[in-house]
Amino acid sequence: MNTDAAVAAARAHRDAAGAAILGRFAELLAIRNVAADPDGLQRTAEWIRDALDERGARAALTALPDAPPVVVGRVDGRPGGRVIGIYAHYDGQPADPARWSSPPFTPTLRDGPGGAVLPFPGPGEPVDPEWRIYARSAADDRGSILALIEALHALGGSPAATLLFLFEGEEERGSPHLGEYLSLLSGRLAADLWLVCDGPVHQSGRPQISLGVRGVMDLEIEVYGPAGDLHSGHYGNWAPNPADLLARLLATMRDDEGRLVVAGAEGPEPDRGALRLAGAVPDPPGMGFPPPGGDSYAARLLRPLLNVRGLRSGDVGAASRNAVPTSAVASIDVRLVAGQEPGEVVAAIERHVAGEGFHLVEGTPSPETRRAHRRIARVSSEVGYPGVRIPGDDRRVREIAAAVAAASGEDPVILPSFGGSVPLHHFAEALGAPPLILPIANHDNGQHGPDENLRVANLWYGIDLYAALLGQAEPRSG
Amino acid sequence: MNTDAAVAAARAHRDAAGAAILGRFAELLAIRNVAADPDGLQRTAEWIRDALDERGARAALTALPDAPPVVVGRVDGRPGGRVIGIYAHYDGQPADPARWSSPPFTPTLRDGPGGAVLPFPGPGEPVDPEWRIYARSAADDRGSILALIEALHALGGSPAATLLFLFEGEEERGSPHLGEYLSLLSGRLAADLWLVCDGPVHQSGRPQISLGVRGVMDLEIEVYGPAGDLHSGHYGNWAPNPADLLARLLATMRDDEGRLVVAGAEGPEPDRGALRLAGAVPDPPGMGFPPPGGDSYAARLLRPLLNVRGLRSGDVGAASRNAVPTSAVASIDVRLVAGQEPGEVVAAIERHVAGEGFHLVEGTPSPETRRAHRRIARVSSEVGYPGVRIPGDDRRVREIAAAVAAASGEDPVILPSFGGSVPLHHFAEALGAPPLILPIANHDNGQHGPDENLRVANLWYGIDLYAALLGQAEPRSG
Repeated sequence: MNTDAAVAAARAHRDAAGAAILGRFAELLAIRNVAADPDGLQRTAEWIRDALDERGARAALTALPDAPPVVVGRVDGRPGGRVIGIYAHYDGQPADPARWSSPPFTPTLRDGPGGAVLPFPGPGEPVDPEWRIYARSAADDRGSILALIEALHALGGSPAATLLFLFEGEEERGSPHLGEYLSLLSGRLAADLWLVCDGPVHQSGRPQISLGVRGVMDLEIEVYGPAGDLHSGHYGNWAPNPADLLARLLATMRDDEGRLVVAGAEGPEPDRGALRLAGAVPDPPGMGFPPPGGDSYAARLLRPLLNVRGLRSGDVGAASRNAVPTSAVASIDVRLVAGQEPGEVVAAIERHVAGEGFHLVEGTPSPETRRAHRRIARVSSEVGYPGVRIPGDDRRVREIAAAVAAASGEDPVILPSFGGSVPLHHFAEALGAPPLILPIANHDNGQHGPDENLRVANLWYGIDLYAALLGQAEPRSG
Repeated sequence: MNTDAAVAAARAHRDAAGAAILGRFAELLAIRNVAADPDGLQRTAEWIRDALDERGARAALTALPDAPPVVVGRVDGRPGGRVIGIYAHYDGQPADPARWSSPPFTPTLRDGPGGAVLPFPGPGEPVDPEWRIYARSAADDRGSILALIEALHALGGSPAATLLFLFEGEEERGSPHLGEYLSLLSGRLAADLWLVCDGPVHQSGRPQISLGVRGVMDLEIEVYGPAGDLHSGHYGNWAPNPADLLARLLATMRDDEGRLVVAGAEGPEPDRGALRLAGAVPDPPGMGFPPPGGDSYAARLLRPLLNVRGLRSGDVGAASRNAVPTSAVASIDVRLVAGQEPGEVVAAIERHVAGEGFHLVEGTPSPETRRAHRRIARVSSEVGYPGVRIPGDDRRVREIAAAVAAASGEDPVILPSFGGSVPLHHFAEALGAPPLILPIANHDNGQHGPDENLRVANLWYGIDLYAALLGQAEPRSG
């Protein structure tokens, strides 16, 4: 068994049993898998455990108190072969049936996006890869789990690589127990590489691999002015204006191109492999504004971001008064790159604010404090989490890319880092290494919204891809 | 008759008839003089006309359609003597009786600020100058009008200087017809100097003269980002962030000390006389923050101000989302110094915004415009009005200061410009010269709020002051 043979086996399986695969998928998707229905989550986990068990895996449920169980287990490959771990989540976002074209837990086949409803095909009837299956979490993430089950089926339960799997049921609630599960089960989860099989492929339709995610941290900066509104005519030339001072402060934290320029918060230089990969990623089209000059889209994601997401001071429009406001607030989210700790970044920002002449306070300043300082600021932050990233020149990335190419016939888009934030640091902390993100869902899957759907061709891609990965016992390339 | 003799006559009058003066004041204050009561305004104007007429003035009412009348007239002094004009307003701010300690149109005597209620004294009974008269517009402005009536009474209706007077009934609504009245009556209003008898004296209790006021103009600057909220993780390093761009723009419009630094909007250099006067004005005490370095309070009022009175973008606090906001707004008021035209200042600000790389739009930009520019801003302004100011070394200022000193025994605080804005440009436009501002009310008069009150000593000061001015037939000093 090698990659090509594994892909051929996967194709033969879905050619022969496409209708049966859709039927099994519909069975899984009919189970309510939302946080509000713990029984439904339990039944989803049991269905997955049983299906894996039938395909030769040793699968079990492990449950922490007051948390949905994880489905955890393994399939042994050739001795001495590589070990890959596959993570996905079996829970879905809440779904409001009133906003769906068909009920979210009544899997519905359509002949295309928003197309005509079709009956599910009978045994042996042909399946069109452009069909779509509509149901909550068809794409996010039960499609990945079903694809893995079918890939194991295609390989007769005896892959070349050893497979570990972990499927959690709380991802849509922010994975509050993932770290604890990973830590608890770490002895059973030692793999060469973990793959997080979540999210959509590239907007262009090309397959995608992401080598990491960014961390995130919420921050609020409040600047204080006079204790009460002051008449701007009488005191505007005399009193500190917190809106102006906040604007001046924010202007020191990003440069003209929007790059974060706070000393100590700029993050490590990206490795050359990551920069090389970034150079090959197409910039996102059709954003509705001219792209910035300089670095490419993907190269910019290798830098942290300070995003001003809100400003509030005084009033604007009809409610505005000719007064010096008493305070001004900026709400900020910071995206952290791998190698940055949230606490260190907060400390760097506080140093920066102090360096701009602000007296730092913990809460609303007392009258004494206001009398003592013209520039007063409070920096408050919510607990965040760090980013993680596999270096761009990691050998394993090339191996996964080769499996993707074998399964899809296309070279994948390799994002050196995803722009958004997912708490994948839990993998790095519990298992010693970050995972790689390997999605299969179509880009237009309606994730989190009504009418979520998975394109059949993407389900087929998932089956072929996991078969290719499980057929790879050894490194393919150098 | 000279200044000293006139002051002596005023004192003799109020020593002899203090109780009667308070009785007449109470009669005037009992008339409802608010915009919601046109009959009350008419009766107020008639009371004032009749009282002036009794003291030898030729007073008349002149009314434009749909406007309260002005009381206008003159008292002839010595032929060839100086001519002074006195402006005040007879209308008051609306008053909510529920918030007053005694009804706003039931004049109430108290033995001090917030003190015990006293009966009005009977004929010949002594009057304590620390008493207060509580009623709407006791201080703002009917006290000034009564003081002028009593000063004329003291001088027997034949002053040395010629007196012109104009009392309007719409000041608290922003003087919408003042320009038209001044223009209509300009042939009867030609004076050496007009005095605006409104507002309080200096916080220290010292008498005050202001040589001008600043103009005002409202401005809104909106910066546009992406057409819809964008995920900050995916697009924050790529999309223009309007909150950040607005902050950067605002930071170019004031310097580190809060001074306006927009080319073409910085106003003329103040004259040396004004700067010299400013140097003698005490800085305001007890503001609750350390004063800025550099120029004194009064010197700063000779410069324009750009006050950021409000900021709005995205959300802050619990409502904030990790998104790049679609727009950011700053609400601004600009205080203009004499010599600046609002239209020219708006044009200078627009040039500045364009110079910072922003494409200027008139309204929300179209998708095409957003695709063409990364920096897009809208500058909108409301019609404002200019400031006016008498130069600091004007001979007439010294004459008025001498009359103030004769009436009060103290040298006045001479503010080269008031910080706030009053539409006194109407005087400059209709009569060819700006007025001087000469208040008599106590600083703690509760102007515009509940429990407005005039200190009896300040009423006495007003009588003495107007008598001194009317006793000044010729310039006193060189």
